[in-house]
Amino acid sequence: MKKNVLIIGAGGVAQVVAHKCAQNNDILGDLHIASRTKSKCDAIIDSVREKGAMKVDGTFEAHEVDATDSEAVAALIRETGSQIVINVGTAFVNMHVLDGCIATGAAYIDTAIHEEPDKICETPPWYANYEWKKRDLCTEHGVTAILGAGFDPGVVNAYARFAIDQMDEVKSIDIVDINAGSHGKYFATNFDPEINFREFTGVVYYWEDQQWKETSMFASGHKWDLPVVGPSQAYQSGHDEVHSLATNYPQADVRFWMGFGDHYINVFTVLKNLGLLSEQPVKTAEGLEVVPLKVVKAVLPDPSSLAPNYTGKTCIGDLVKGTKDGKDVEYFVYNVADHKEAYEEVGSQGISYTAGVPPVAAAILIAQGDWDAKTMKNVEEMDPKPFFTQLDRIGLPTRVMVGGLKGEDKAWTEV
Amino acid sequence: MKKNVLIIGAGGVAQVVAHKCAQNNDILGDLHIASRTKSKCDAIIDSVREKGAMKVDGTFEAHEVDATDSEAVAALIRETGSQIVINVGTAFVNMHVLDGCIATGAAYIDTAIHEEPDKICETPPWYANYEWKKRDLCTEHGVTAILGAGFDPGVVNAYARFAIDQMDEVKSIDIVDINAGSHGKYFATNFDPEINFREFTGVVYYWEDQQWKETSMFASGHKWDLPVVGPSQAYQSGHDEVHSLATNYPQADVRFWMGFGDHYINVFTVLKNLGLLSEQPVKTAEGLEVVPLKVVKAVLPDPSSLAPNYTGKTCIGDLVKGTKDGKDVEYFVYNVADHKEAYEEVGSQGISYTAGVPPVAAAILIAQGDWDAKTMKNVEEMDPKPFFTQLDRIGLPTRVMVGGLKGEDKAWTEV
Repeated sequence: MKKNVLIIGAGGVAQVVAHKCAQNNDILGDLHIASRTKSKCDAIIDSVREKGAMKVDGTFEAHEVDATDSEAVAALIRETGSQIVINVGTAFVNMHVLDGCIATGAAYIDTAIHEEPDKICETPPWYANYEWKKRDLCTEHGVTAILGAGFDPGVVNAYARFAIDQMDEVKSIDIVDINAGSHGKYFATNFDPEINFREFTGVVYYWEDQQWKETSMFASGHKWDLPVVGPSQAYQSGHDEVHSLATNYPQADVRFWMGFGDHYINVFTVLKNLGLLSEQPVKTAEGLEVVPLKVVKAVLPDPSSLAPNYTGKTCIGDLVKGTKDGKDVEYFVYNVADHKEAYEEVGSQGISYTAGVPPVAAAILIAQGDWDAKTMKNVEEMDPKPFFTQLDRIGLPTRVMVGGLKGEDKAWTEV
Repeated sequence: MKKNVLIIGAGGVAQVVAHKCAQNNDILGDLHIASRTKSKCDAIIDSVREKGAMKVDGTFEAHEVDATDSEAVAALIRETGSQIVINVGTAFVNMHVLDGCIATGAAYIDTAIHEEPDKICETPPWYANYEWKKRDLCTEHGVTAILGAGFDPGVVNAYARFAIDQMDEVKSIDIVDINAGSHGKYFATNFDPEINFREFTGVVYYWEDQQWKETSMFASGHKWDLPVVGPSQAYQSGHDEVHSLATNYPQADVRFWMGFGDHYINVFTVLKNLGLLSEQPVKTAEGLEVVPLKVVKAVLPDPSSLAPNYTGKTCIGDLVKGTKDGKDVEYFVYNVADHKEAYEEVGSQGISYTAGVPPVAAAILIAQGDWDAKTMKNVEEMDPKPFFTQLDRIGLPTRVMVGGLKGEDKAWTEV
């Protein structure tokens, strides 16, 4: 049994994490939130207080921390008596926060793979470049580290595990992420533009025929007909969970598909071709060194600002194909979330909501012992059933379609 | 009679100016070139020497100068004994260089209207905001200042004056600038991107029915069927010469049309809507203050780098309508330039060529006394005939179509 949670980060996802932790503070104990800018943490706590989100009276305090300084993170963990750290800061801080957890014995949860600011798209499997190198150290210190416990990666890893558990043999896992919502802006990204664009500028790796294959962004498209959101054009994208699922289920093809409209693709293509999505600094005529991607981030709307006017739904799920008792079988395991409902509950849009609820479910499972693994794990290595129970209870119900996916609540067709 | 030329600036247009001055140094005397970065001036002089462009043995020296410092400009004018300054630096330095000329008595020539870095699109007529305020001072000191003596503004002002001189009454002046060349890059601007984009982000002013009217960029389009380059889509744009021609010929409608392809418009629209063409600084997440437009400039190809692979032609001209002896009459006065020929002659592409040749023609006319006005003038206030003679001699021949523009060397039609 572990108690007391330290949240690292103060963006849109942290806002959701804070609200959900508050709603479950009877299980999670004292709550703390820390980021580079303390005022952002204060604003999140204010929003929690305004909604009356704390289930029971208790502590919720804001702190300033440089999360790239693992000793500062360790000191804050000790000072706050936190036994669980939910890291939803920028992906650049992950390994530093993990080091702080290893130093103190606190459990670690994150929602995205570690990135180095000056590198885009490392060699697959991505987790082997940073995270998995620390697995033995976690085991040695008995530290629980649950990697990629957002929605995708995270819940979709559990969806894959659940479907595979129903089969004798798995043949393919296709993860499909469709945001059919509308934010009403000319253009915006749903989370940190810097991380968002970095996802799409590198090589797209996928796993087929038991080997890594490569394509490029927007080169491999497919129209998926999903429940609720309907037919949606999606493109193969590089994504964290492909790298762990391919390692854990090497016999299965593993692909990730992200939905994009023509307008997004046009804006992205212009920015990319001009060199404005580069993470490498350029020098202006006046001699100022500046990273173009950081300027693009500066001019785009803050993702958290989209929440009040965001409408529509998301559908994210796994189509898993395999065999059972000698017959072909298919599962589509998915969730549908609503932007407006998310905003009304926690003051964030649906993308932040789907990313922020799962790490709190994971924290609850660690607090209760179910997922307190005392080593490093990706989500598909954990029992999905208690995770689904918590997700269902705190806002992200799991839906399952089985069979040939015909005649269920919606047919799954390829166009 | 004036002698010895100081060129301010070291970009693609300055390269052309340098070559053309060298080719006419028997008339122009000693040559000097100065910019913020002396090495760029050295490279231009090297290119002049490589082509053997100096007509007679003579001086051509490079200097470093901060052209926003009018005293430094004046000191350099005195030091070099220059009696003519051709200012082809960024439009932000114009008034400072003019002040340097007024202080020393040197003649001043520029090719674009003065701009302040933090302002886009001032109230019309634009020249009244900065240049014309110094007209009395020029008269008082007997300083010749020829404003906007590039191609457009510049040659097109002379085209208008020439056509109007053939009429009893002028009714309209439509200036059309079509670049039908291809540089082979994904996207590039033909001159300084900062100045280029600033032209298109503000209100588009035009003069009709003896008053200023407003539209916005790409809102007013028209397909013009021009000689040599053929049918070309163009859009009303704000341009310097509309402001002086409307002042000098208030009875005429005055409009400027710039040719744009769909790809240019798409890229421009994306950048503008995202806020990346803004001249107002933004702050990155790391706290760095940066002007987005300067970053866009930094990632785009240097306009001078386009020259080696640029192919195709430009057509820039004036359609002037009026009456003569009670009958309607139309003149289309124009030039056709070739990118590849320009590169072979002076190492620059056609846009730089058409902008850089005219101020040298103006300098020759000042040196010879024809245009040594001893006050401030826009080009349409000067006799166009000796200008055409010089332009024809040094690389930009004038062509004229008269009549209803039917049955001439090409019909002029509206689609």
